[in-house]
Amino acid sequence: MIRLAKLAIPVALVFLPQAGLAQGADVTPTNADIGYIFTTFMFLVSGFLVFFMAAGFAMLEAGLVRGKNVAMQLTKNVALFSLASLFYYIIGYNLMYPGDAWTVSSVLGAFSITGLQPVGLEGAEPDLTYASVGSDFFFQLMFCAATASIVSGALAERIKLWPFLFFVILLTAVIYPIQASWKWGGGFLDAMGFQDFAGSTVVHSVGGWAALTGAIILGPRLGKYKDGKVTPFPGSNLALATLGTFILWLGWFGFNGGSQLYMDTAGNVADISRIFANTNTAAAAGAVVALLLTQYMYKKPDLTMILNGALAGLVSITAEPLTPTLVEATLIGGVGGAIVVFAVPLLDKLRIDDVVGAIPVHLFAGIWGTLAVVFTNDAANILTQSLSILIVGAFVVVASTIVWLALKSTIGLRVDEETEINGLDMEELGMEAYPEFNPI
Amino acid sequence: MIRLAKLAIPVALVFLPQAGLAQGADVTPTNADIGYIFTTFMFLVSGFLVFFMAAGFAMLEAGLVRGKNVAMQLTKNVALFSLASLFYYIIGYNLMYPGDAWTVSSVLGAFSITGLQPVGLEGAEPDLTYASVGSDFFFQLMFCAATASIVSGALAERIKLWPFLFFVILLTAVIYPIQASWKWGGGFLDAMGFQDFAGSTVVHSVGGWAALTGAIILGPRLGKYKDGKVTPFPGSNLALATLGTFILWLGWFGFNGGSQLYMDTAGNVADISRIFANTNTAAAAGAVVALLLTQYMYKKPDLTMILNGALAGLVSITAEPLTPTLVEATLIGGVGGAIVVFAVPLLDKLRIDDVVGAIPVHLFAGIWGTLAVVFTNDAANILTQSLSILIVGAFVVVASTIVWLALKSTIGLRVDEETEINGLDMEELGMEAYPEFNPI
Amino acid sequence: MIRLAKLAIPVALVFLPQAGLAQGADVTPTNADIGYIFTTFMFLVSGFLVFFMAAGFAMLEAGLVRGKNVAMQLTKNVALFSLASLFYYIIGYNLMYPGDAWTVSSVLGAFSITGLQPVGLEGAEPDLTYASVGSDFFFQLMFCAATASIVSGALAERIKLWPFLFFVILLTAVIYPIQASWKWGGGFLDAMGFQDFAGSTVVHSVGGWAALTGAIILGPRLGKYKDGKVTPFPGSNLALATLGTFILWLGWFGFNGGSQLYMDTAGNVADISRIFANTNTAAAAGAVVALLLTQYMYKKPDLTMILNGALAGLVSITAEPLTPTLVEATLIGGVGGAIVVFAVPLLDKLRIDDVVGAIPVHLFAGIWGTLAVVFTNDAANILTQSLSILIVGAFVVVASTIVWLALKSTIGLRVDEETEINGLDMEELGMEAYPEFNPI
Repeated sequence: MIRLAKLAIPVALVFLPQAGLAQGADVTPTNADIGYIFTTFMFLVSGFLVFFMAAGFAMLEAGLVRGKNVAMQLTKNVALFSLASLFYYIIGYNLMYPGDAWTVSSVLGAFSITGLQPVGLEGAEPDLTYASVGSDFFFQLMFCAATASIVSGALAERIKLWPFLFFVILLTAVIYPIQASWKWGGGFLDAMGFQDFAGSTVVHSVGGWAALTGAIILGPRLGKYKDGKVTPFPGSNLALATLGTFILWLGWFGFNGGSQLYMDTAGNVADISRIFANTNTAAAAGAVVALLLTQYMYKKPDLTMILNGALAGLVSITAEPLTPTLVEATLIGGVGGAIVVFAVPLLDKLRIDDVVGAIPVHLFAGIWGTLAVVFTNDAANILTQSLSILIVGAFVVVASTIVWLALKSTIGLRVDEETEINGLDMEELGMEAYPEFNPI
Repeated sequence: MIRLAKLAIPVALVFLPQAGLAQGADVTPTNADIGYIFTTFMFLVSGFLVFFMAAGFAMLEAGLVRGKNVAMQLTKNVALFSLASLFYYIIGYNLMYPGDAWTVSSVLGAFSITGLQPVGLEGAEPDLTYASVGSDFFFQLMFCAATASIVSGALAERIKLWPFLFFVILLTAVIYPIQASWKWGGGFLDAMGFQDFAGSTVVHSVGGWAALTGAIILGPRLGKYKDGKVTPFPGSNLALATLGTFILWLGWFGFNGGSQLYMDTAGNVADISRIFANTNTAAAAGAVVALLLTQYMYKKPDLTMILNGALAGLVSITAEPLTPTLVEATLIGGVGGAIVVFAVPLLDKLRIDDVVGAIPVHLFAGIWGTLAVVFTNDAANILTQSLSILIVGAFVVVASTIVWLALKSTIGLRVDEETEINGLDMEELGMEAYPEFNPI
Repeated sequence: MIRLAKLAIPVALVFLPQAGLAQGADVTPTNADIGYIFTTFMFLVSGFLVFFMAAGFAMLEAGLVRGKNVAMQLTKNVALFSLASLFYYIIGYNLMYPGDAWTVSSVLGAFSITGLQPVGLEGAEPDLTYASVGSDFFFQLMFCAATASIVSGALAERIKLWPFLFFVILLTAVIYPIQASWKWGGGFLDAMGFQDFAGSTVVHSVGGWAALTGAIILGPRLGKYKDGKVTPFPGSNLALATLGTFILWLGWFGFNGGSQLYMDTAGNVADISRIFANTNTAAAAGAVVALLLTQYMYKKPDLTMILNGALAGLVSITAEPLTPTLVEATLIGGVGGAIVVFAVPLLDKLRIDDVVGAIPVHLFAGIWGTLAVVFTNDAANILTQSLSILIVGAFVVVASTIVWLALKSTIGLRVDEETEINGLDMEELGMEAYPEFNPI
């Protein structure tokens, strides 16, 4: 971080020329550079916002599980993000943008060693109409990791650590990138005209399908559904859950805004602004609808539902955050909020135990959002949207089921009863998240 | 998020031209675009920082209320931000920038449907000397929401959810925008020469006045003032309160920095840098003064006071974060910190129960900051500053009082005694923030 | 924040020209301005990310100390950041960039009054090839404050508040800036060819050495090492510790990315992208290695080690985040993670009590990262790197020891036994972080 000391202090200091060369070159940008700098920096800023969603998911999930499973849920979240960060560069990113063919050399390791452009772009002939490869990789990685984060919440409090992490590796290295390539890698769904701006389907429903198959195969937590009744297991820390929701909401500006992919013209930056405004509006509408509905239905507002309502509003607008007006964004997000309120008890009726509500939020609202594109974007048609949802869903359900069942029949998926009752923290980790406060 | 796959991987990959069209156009920006992109992006970055202040307020308040009211305080914070997000676009933003007249068509719905510029700016003739409408709206919304957040903390632990939310709607849709238009909409306070760079008065004192009238009309919490003695009700989670303070401090860089309104020249970005440095310095000075004063007065530093001291430093510098030197910023912020230390016990003497110290921080330090402008900015004079504080204060006090009293006499403002004693969480929400840890 | 109301609402609104003048000028940037705006804004964004690391350290440390010391740890973190913010501008920044000589007038107060460039750069002749002085100051300050944050964790739960804060003042005003000037101020280490891109040595090992000397002089916590056995004192809140780690990880993108120092060309922004990708990869690798090693060695993964593994990965890549490939970044970060796993028990064997693992993370991984530069950057050689590590280490150890011993022999360093047993919160602050939840 050496720099030439050029403090403009108007006292009698004599500045000698410094020996060190500055790390970056101090050169006036050419006109050709400027668009590239804008778009690349936009990806970096968007990317760190989406990165922070990893913290959002961790806090949301840590807040919604019971105290005895908090340390494990935190461990899963840190580990899944870390594994995604490695396997996405080793395999996933290559698979997602394969050029026109997948070959062994293109898939395994090609990107990991030579993929990033050379330092200072020396010797490279970068495509200055887009962005740096590193910024694109950084941004795309965060979407892949978010997909895995969706799964961890639904399966909390009963899945073993290692099979879960094996699933994460396969999801982020293979399953997510393959289907993402169909749309974002310029594959056949894209050729069909499928519209999914920032991933209501490509990211959220994919995480949701993987979570759904996992939740069914794992089965519900002990005591959750007993004698035909649903026992609520309240989250241990709603302050953390609220913090997590706000962090996710913040990250979503990067998630949707960055998906504009360009910030090199007035039109593009104005579009990113529309996206920010619509994304925020949809989240707010989802929260307000969940507030009103739970007040109406249960006579008491339900904070957990309101948080999930906001998240469902965000997922709903993700397939098309650009074209809606603010009123349309309100409606799209509001329906997302309603979906959560009705779907959470529905899943309970089906005895599908989703600890944090990830399936309603990411799968159901993801489907809704993908369909709702047709209301505001003429390029979308309902058949292509529906077909694409089904194709992606079928692929992820089949692939996930194979992986879950393979794990189940080998190393096993679920902790034993005693571990589940005593909590995964003490049994699997030997530590507690709140060792001084727990009543146990 | 489809992009053309242009990985510069120097292995034998053949890239065929992709079918899909990129979402944004990859066009070199014109010179006319560049300033527009800079300023618009600056608003988006500043805006997401100020957005995050909603999380900061939520954590600060959740940490400073007692455990039995945490879930309710979180609910209020999520709900108030969401309602502000909707009502500000439906009504508030139109009111705040009315052009030269308020008409029904301009106020109700005009912005909500057609306000955002068209996608890709197609057919629009944008004013490239400023920023996109969407980014301006996004940024301004966050100020409006912050105003409402200020109120929620002061009235915590005893106000009912719904009357509070009705107040929020009126505050964000009508009260805040009207007075903000007087200064920032180019109204009469602006014409008078009133100086309030980022809103010590327009935002912070407005929230503070609304909180003060509410606190007086509501009355103190049960048992707070008994037999002439003040009973301290310690906050339940000072880690969250500290986190909230840091998040607010972070958000303030966007709050004050973004209020420069332009980032299209070297002079503007250098000014934003000054603002960042001054904002940080004032916060630090406020914290240090509170640290020293509480050590001196009580022989023990008071963490809550230090946190509020930092926030008061931030509020104090908000009316003029640009012109002070670092030394002046230190003095301005330091006085803010002192105000908090002296004002908190003063309010208690007056039996005005402000749960989180919002009135000292936002109202008293807001007034101080507005007056202190005259020390560093020649464009300000003490009479205009004082008169403007009084005008805004009178308006907000009268309007708020009317709303609070109307709510009190209809649906009622305050929970019943039993609810207050047992906590709003169980009685009004039927859930607890920390169900496993509470001693009750 | 007044702006000209230019809503493009296509309804019959008549907009009269507004009286108010905009705060910033709306001028198309010149080509000469653009690079300056890019780099300056990059510093501001990087700077607020590094600022947020203060919250990360606070949460990490609050989570890893016992409940009875949480409020004190929070107090120390807020106070140390605030004091650093003041003393770095009063003394430190002047010392760090001295020009070719330190004089009384250059060191004391020169920067504080006249250092920031004038408002609007009026009358200034700014060097448009770099960035604004304010943005550079803001960015550099955050590095200085981070150094102090490193110390607070290691010495937690037994050091008195005020001697700790005196140490912070000397560290941030004098010790850190002097050694930083040797490299980043263009001093003799820089002239020697020492390579330390973002401060594995200049920041992290410096904090680590100060922490090490402090930990030795203070001695371990009561009961930590008894009868030859190590008693674990589990952290009170691993959710906060995880949040803190994620916040630090986020901040590190600014820490390393901003250290590129320029964002005015395609090459520079592409380099920043490489840095983001490598930084994230090294963190992930550190976490994964700690996960695998603790599973292998203890049969149970250790969340605290995983968190510190991620941080050690980050510290390791900090000396050279630009030149490595992703594979190399993985190896560099992974070794960092391994260092933590082995060094934490080693310190315990030496009866050096480091409450949060700051010495392994910042000192040991910092040394490793500084040496590892030679693997990927031809400009570095192992002798210069080693010698520089030793010189900086010797200076900081000697200076810190003098300060610690001086404090010990005057006002005393350590709380008395009763305070330590009862917790610093009640004894030194008279408040608890979680008054309702603590078992005591």
